[in-house]
Amino acid sequence: MFRYKISIEYDGTGFCGWQKQNGLKSIQGTLETALHDFCGEVCTISVAGRTDAGVHALAQVAHFDLSKKYPCNVIVGALNYHIKAKSKNHNNCFHNNVQPIVVTSSELVDLNFHARFNATERQYQYIILNRRTISPIEANRSWYVAMQLNLDAMKNAASVLIGTHDFSSFRSSECQAKSPIKTLDKICISIDNDHILFNFTAKSFLHHMVRNIVGTLKFIGARNLDNNYIATILDAKSRASAGEMAPSHGLYFIASKYDNYIIYDSWQ
Amino acid sequence: MFRYKISIEYDGTGFCGWQKQNGLKSIQGTLETALHDFCGEVCTISVAGRTDAGVHALAQVAHFDLSKKYPCNVIVGALNYHIKAKSKNHNNCFHNNVQPIVVTSSELVDLNFHARFNATERQYQYIILNRRTISPIEANRSWYVAMQLNLDAMKNAASVLIGTHDFSSFRSSECQAKSPIKTLDKICISIDNDHILFNFTAKSFLHHMVRNIVGTLKFIGARNLDNNYIATILDAKSRASAGEMAPSHGLYFIASKYDNYIIYDSWQ
Repeated sequence: MFRYKISIEYDGTGFCGWQKQNGLKSIQGTLETALHDFCGEVCTISVAGRTDAGVHALAQVAHFDLSKKYPCNVIVGALNYHIKAKSKNHNNCFHNNVQPIVVTSSELVDLNFHARFNATERQYQYIILNRRTISPIEANRSWYVAMQLNLDAMKNAASVLIGTHDFSSFRSSECQAKSPIKTLDKICISIDNDHILFNFTAKSFLHHMVRNIVGTLKFIGARNLDNNYIATILDAKSRASAGEMAPSHGLYFIASKYDNYIIYDSWQ
Repeated sequence: MFRYKISIEYDGTGFCGWQKQNGLKSIQGTLETALHDFCGEVCTISVAGRTDAGVHALAQVAHFDLSKKYPCNVIVGALNYHIKAKSKNHNNCFHNNVQPIVVTSSELVDLNFHARFNATERQYQYIILNRRTISPIEANRSWYVAMQLNLDAMKNAASVLIGTHDFSSFRSSECQAKSPIKTLDKICISIDNDHILFNFTAKSFLHHMVRNIVGTLKFIGARNLDNNYIATILDAKSRASAGEMAPSHGLYFIASKYDNYIIYDSWQ
């Protein structure tokens, strides 16, 4: 068997999320169909970060095994060709006839590489559009928040979450992780014109953890709350204690990192 | 009569352009319908820069006259409400149910203000996505160019176009301007990650002038041509001498400026 690592960019709008679900359009299902259309093999694609419906990715990482060896440029070209062929009516819009998923690079790697289990770091970015009106140019690309947000209050609150904690308060009721304890390495909050960017780095995250944290930080920024507020939520270890969940369309999976794997071929 | 100046952001995808055309969906027509739905008055909206099909705007400027005086926040709120009500099926996509045109600010101004005739400066931005694969996140938002482009060659060529010239070589055959002579004040070319940004500033432009210049600069960047190439095209004063026209979906109308007008009320 030959193991292929791929990077994928996608617009999550209109998908039920990464994971295959009966009768729904998923990122995983679209990629596996494209793989089958390309080489006739049926295989399951493993992914670094399973994203929810509407969540985007700039550099999602996945892997799959094929019985044949192909040059990596062929893997990229063939997958994109077959995704495009099937996505002609993706949006049912003649003028919006775009390919919602694109494979941006590929590597032929050793069989010990695993996109999900070997990831040593994952990065998400959340984008808030903070201005007085919505933006048509950024529809489905950011969370529109009209009220003024206090950046320092959000930065201070974020610092409380850094490190190893029981994140039950920021965990979806459907989360399948065995433990609610995670280590959050970094939250960087920055301004880019009308945007507030939240960059999260950790080895792994709980289900909905980033969106629940951003929703709570936005609440803190809007009301200029001090650090007691978020400390109380964290200590409560209960989802009911935290604020609203930020919507999916402002969230991007942007990177995952791996140590010690062998690359036999690559195209990027 | 009361004259209202508005700023408008729009996603030009799926529109026939700014100008009303029978049976087609235009930016102007959508706005005039929203105005009529709001107050019952039929009026023609004048605009700073008439954009073509697929061209976007971050801050298009327009004006119109109404017989009644409304607070500017009412103008913004009412126009957006009525645009949204009519745009529910804009893309025929249930999950892409977005408002493609948004009024972002409004001013009540004196009757001498004119969005088109009094503009002292107009700014366009053109975005090239310069990487090896297309981007689903940026579909319809930039011109995807895979080949490497020499930035210095493009900057040097752009410098030849600065100043007052006969721009016939970069003019659409359908251009209605009386003279092909225009004064190009600035072309700033910069890099932002995978993007090449072209910022154009002039009092006014010929039809297709920005897209024809960008298409030619891209050709120069791809082949690393020296300044004789663009000088020859400019001197030819013939559209046939220039290169391909850059596609509409990478172009944004970003600003227009005005001197000496009175603002009685504003919301922004």
